[in-house]
Amino acid sequence: MNAFNVDEHMQALGAQARQAAARMARADAATKNAALKALARRLGDAGPELAEANARDVERAQAAGLAAPMVDRLRLSSKVIDTLIQGCLQLAAMPDVIGEIIGMRQQPTGIRVGQMRVPIGVFGMIYESRPNVTIEAASLAIKSGNAAILRGGSEAIESNRALAQMVADALAEAGLPPEAVQLVQTTDREAVGRLIAMPQYVDVIIPRGGKGLIERISRDAKVPVIKHLDGNCHVFVDAGADLDMAQAIVDNAKTQKYSPCNAAEGLLVARSVAAEFLPKIGAVFAAKGVEMRCDEAASAILRAPGALPEGASVVPAQESDWFEEYLAAVISIKVVEGVDEAIAHINHYSSHHTDAIVTRDHMHAQRFLREVDSASVMVNASTRFADGFEFGLGAEIGISTDKFHARGPVGIEGLTSLKYVVLGNGELRR
Amino acid sequence: MNAFNVDEHMQALGAQARQAAARMARADAATKNAALKALARRLGDAGPELAEANARDVERAQAAGLAAPMVDRLRLSSKVIDTLIQGCLQLAAMPDVIGEIIGMRQQPTGIRVGQMRVPIGVFGMIYESRPNVTIEAASLAIKSGNAAILRGGSEAIESNRALAQMVADALAEAGLPPEAVQLVQTTDREAVGRLIAMPQYVDVIIPRGGKGLIERISRDAKVPVIKHLDGNCHVFVDAGADLDMAQAIVDNAKTQKYSPCNAAEGLLVARSVAAEFLPKIGAVFAAKGVEMRCDEAASAILRAPGALPEGASVVPAQESDWFEEYLAAVISIKVVEGVDEAIAHINHYSSHHTDAIVTRDHMHAQRFLREVDSASVMVNASTRFADGFEFGLGAEIGISTDKFHARGPVGIEGLTSLKYVVLGNGELRR
Repeated sequence: MNAFNVDEHMQALGAQARQAAARMARADAATKNAALKALARRLGDAGPELAEANARDVERAQAAGLAAPMVDRLRLSSKVIDTLIQGCLQLAAMPDVIGEIIGMRQQPTGIRVGQMRVPIGVFGMIYESRPNVTIEAASLAIKSGNAAILRGGSEAIESNRALAQMVADALAEAGLPPEAVQLVQTTDREAVGRLIAMPQYVDVIIPRGGKGLIERISRDAKVPVIKHLDGNCHVFVDAGADLDMAQAIVDNAKTQKYSPCNAAEGLLVARSVAAEFLPKIGAVFAAKGVEMRCDEAASAILRAPGALPEGASVVPAQESDWFEEYLAAVISIKVVEGVDEAIAHINHYSSHHTDAIVTRDHMHAQRFLREVDSASVMVNASTRFADGFEFGLGAEIGISTDKFHARGPVGIEGLTSLKYVVLGNGELRR
Repeated sequence: MNAFNVDEHMQALGAQARQAAARMARADAATKNAALKALARRLGDAGPELAEANARDVERAQAAGLAAPMVDRLRLSSKVIDTLIQGCLQLAAMPDVIGEIIGMRQQPTGIRVGQMRVPIGVFGMIYESRPNVTIEAASLAIKSGNAAILRGGSEAIESNRALAQMVADALAEAGLPPEAVQLVQTTDREAVGRLIAMPQYVDVIIPRGGKGLIERISRDAKVPVIKHLDGNCHVFVDAGADLDMAQAIVDNAKTQKYSPCNAAEGLLVARSVAAEFLPKIGAVFAAKGVEMRCDEAASAILRAPGALPEGASVVPAQESDWFEEYLAAVISIKVVEGVDEAIAHINHYSSHHTDAIVTRDHMHAQRFLREVDSASVMVNASTRFADGFEFGLGAEIGISTDKFHARGPVGIEGLTSLKYVVLGNGELRR
């Protein structure tokens, strides 16, 4: 057997993807939806091969001593499979945005000019551990009329191969090219380097993973990257806010789950309500074991005798805390003068992901929405809503902290571009 | 006097631009329009300083032996100034898109989610010779609520300095930060290298110039680039087309002006109309001295005795001709079987800028619009219409041949991004 050549493999995947992309772009809605339904059916009928492949990945991970939460991410439980099936069926039921024409208007010369939504072409997806991303990316590629090259984590390679085979079979069943969704067949890291540097074959890279991975890919990529760096999200409790609502929102934003990127990492409180609000929310945090890293003013309130129950953890914040994405039972807390200082603090320290204000003041709400330079800005809602499904996009391929092209949760539209269409009757340029 | 330090200069421009951008993003429409009107007035009142600065640039260029067309591009004639004044006033009269909220819809959880149009932040513009670009870029920056750092050509440095001073004065007059539009004060090439590698200060680079410049910038930039590579545009004359309309469109697309990027460089003719159409359009090209580089089938028709008048230039096309952007009195001509081959040829050889079909066939028109992978696709109209003003964008900062973010003529919307806004009533994530 010949040695496996990574470069040749990636070139072949790229060329096949580019060819398949042209056919996917032309595919009609019914055909794409048939492929999605076939994929859902195949997932539902999945025989022992998938379960066995997944079991081998899980065993290998356990043998290698991976931490339990990491091993859990690998598991294709029947609940995970069910969610994937529902996702495929929901996408099949959504209207097709490809080919829609927007803004068609007649110009003074007589030509009519509008914009048609078309697929981007080929996207490369780089992700870690969770094999369900294989199906999420595949189904989004099918619905959006793109081709995709998927590079999953080495720890999930057997599960990913089994899932990718189902995708290929579903595509073929619907009469679409099976090469529209291809899995990189090697776990060699060199394959990532090739995938992000083939502008002739790949139009955009979507990495999902840790900040280190995404920074490395962004630095080395020769094509655009839909970047999701960190989520250092804030809630600002304004003067005059409904403090019960504020408590519920801050609690939800911080503690409903600690690991998501849209969980709050920083709490800002207007000085005029700090003395009343901080002990209320502090008691919640104390009860849930959330460490509070506080500036001097917040510390003074929270450390006052009787302010918090025994055992509450209030520690001084360092400058680095304001930048931190904890993804843990920790929150930074700062007292600010008002909406001006809150906006300035957020624009300086936040990661431009998601930030919220709790307020009753219409002018403050308007200013916060307009001036906070983040992908999602919210009034009187939990930052945990920053999510493609919650925003009604129907599906999510990632959350972009960039301003270019797609910003915030990225759904099908983020995988499309708009080209100008011009309809004339023989008009000439004068 | 200390040596001029390019790095310090660029860092200072960047930091000032970033600060000014925050104020520009907050500026209301009336203030921005006041600045545009003040700029128009100052251009109209321009004293001898501007004329003298421009005269010095022109003299220096002539002394350096620049070709006459290059020298002409430098000249700020009263006609050029008038066009700039009209441009500023038109922008001032346009509605402000900043702050508009689109697609606001209630989700099942009760939150309302929409998208707000906001400025990108800071753009860097790199351009050659023509000093009018200074005013075009400045006025677009003002209207779109962005800050800009402008790097003009060294041959126009004195004109650009005089114009940039007017912009700064107009901004200050309206109460906006004069640092919102800054001109790089050195002609040192190192300044370009710095400008494209300051992601902390510059959000996007817009280069205007030759293909070599744009490729170099795209390769080295550490921020997104709105790229305009070449314009290898095609007209396809379909079977059954109105051949008089086809003749008028092909003539206009090729000969109305030779130098624009949206001029046609390739003509494709369906075999069934080639024998009738090619001598018609060949006679036009012969009369205007346009060289025809033909495939065998087109050559056979055009070189038949009596097909064209004496002196017509018909030469064999090389493979490289199909890729060529001539920007001159030359056109490549190929006979194709029909719409399938035309689409395949265009998608392979064109630069994805602008391509047109002349047809009466509805199905062919639909397929051409959908399947040709170019920024602008046209039916029965001249490729010369691919232009921000002709498309009704009100202004144009460039034409993008990329699929990412902005595609085709880029107006004010291309200098903005959409952020998600969420309005709640205390909703929590379950």
